[in-house]
Amino acid sequence: MNNERLEKQLAFALEIDKEKNVFRHTSLSGHGRKENDAEHAWHMAVMAYLLKEYSNEDIDISKVMIMCLIHDIVEIEAGDSYAYDENEMATQKEREDAAKEKIFSMLPDDQKEEFIALFDEFEAYETPEARFAHVMDNLQPLILNNSNNGGDWKENNVTAKQVYARQSLNKLGSEKLYEITDEILKENIRKGNLL
Amino acid sequence: MNNERLEKQLAFALEIDKEKNVFRHTSLSGHGRKENDAEHAWHMAVMAYLLKEYSNEDIDISKVMIMCLIHDIVEIEAGDSYAYDENEMATQKEREDAAKEKIFSMLPDDQKEEFIALFDEFEAYETPEARFAHVMDNLQPLILNNSNNGGDWKENNVTAKQVYARQSLNKLGSEKLYEITDEILKENIRKGNLL
Repeated sequence: MNNERLEKQLAFALEIDKEKNVFRHTSLSGHGRKENDAEHAWHMAVMAYLLKEYSNEDIDISKVMIMCLIHDIVEIEAGDSYAYDENEMATQKEREDAAKEKIFSMLPDDQKEEFIALFDEFEAYETPEARFAHVMDNLQPLILNNSNNGGDWKENNVTAKQVYARQSLNKLGSEKLYEITDEILKENIRKGNLL
Repeated sequence: MNNERLEKQLAFALEIDKEKNVFRHTSLSGHGRKENDAEHAWHMAVMAYLLKEYSNEDIDISKVMIMCLIHDIVEIEAGDSYAYDENEMATQKEREDAAKEKIFSMLPDDQKEEFIALFDEFEAYETPEARFAHVMDNLQPLILNNSNNGGDWKENNVTAKQVYARQSLNKLGSEKLYEITDEILKENIRKGNLL
């Protein structure tokens, strides 16, 4: 094949296959195994499409979906950082910035720039699309963990205060989905699933 | 929560988690384990966005992505049908039609209709979006299998004739991506990976 651009794109497409081997702290429903980043991203993107009517602001759903789909690609290099592990979170940005430069440099320059811009926009939490994508990043593991009676919180000694600090940001993207988040959390506190 | 619509949407979001337990015949790169439908759908959707410039016709990339993301949800009920297993393929449509009615009926009526329409459009292979989504459905396992020296073909005694019958349809969605498909297949025949 005499086509440098397509070669780069296909090498990147093969490289990101590794995201299927980056495992998270969230268990699948039915008290299943831990899920991986690719599965999480897929679930987030479907949920974004399914629940788009609840965004506080008008959103470009195509942008939200691709943001959801690629937001964890850097973890192929940087590893998963558990949202409730302070040590991992302290070094997350530095590790992910190095990873993003390395991985997205496999792409043709214009797409490297585009994918990094999407990743940075997601991380910055400032646009309607980034805020709604973050609601999915928080809500997706919540519905799994809720279905498992809070097993992941118990396993990691996570407190209600920690969970609220993170999940209350859902308000920024969707008042309506924050309402249900709040109901789910209150129910789990009542049941003793979350201390 | 006094909100039937959102309750249905969240019940569906939880149900589709099961797609992560539907395994395919394709092995992950690096001679890894078999991949599941959720991972496959994620990979297809990212590749669709990455390679959209090669579509023969103008496409709505948002529609292509959601089609890729949901096209295998029916397999939660119907199971995966291996593209090169004639017996499985013979009963696929019947099994998937029953499954689609059951699963998508969990959604509010308007979204049930929308998701079934997207699924049917994908299956019908007639629109530019469906044709390009199918290129991804064929190209994604091809790049994995190519990276593994054709291991999945060998394991399942798949012949070049069978593979060409399927992969040559890529022409309909992208002449350019069919060129590279053809190059990859010829190389694998030359190496003895595909008989």
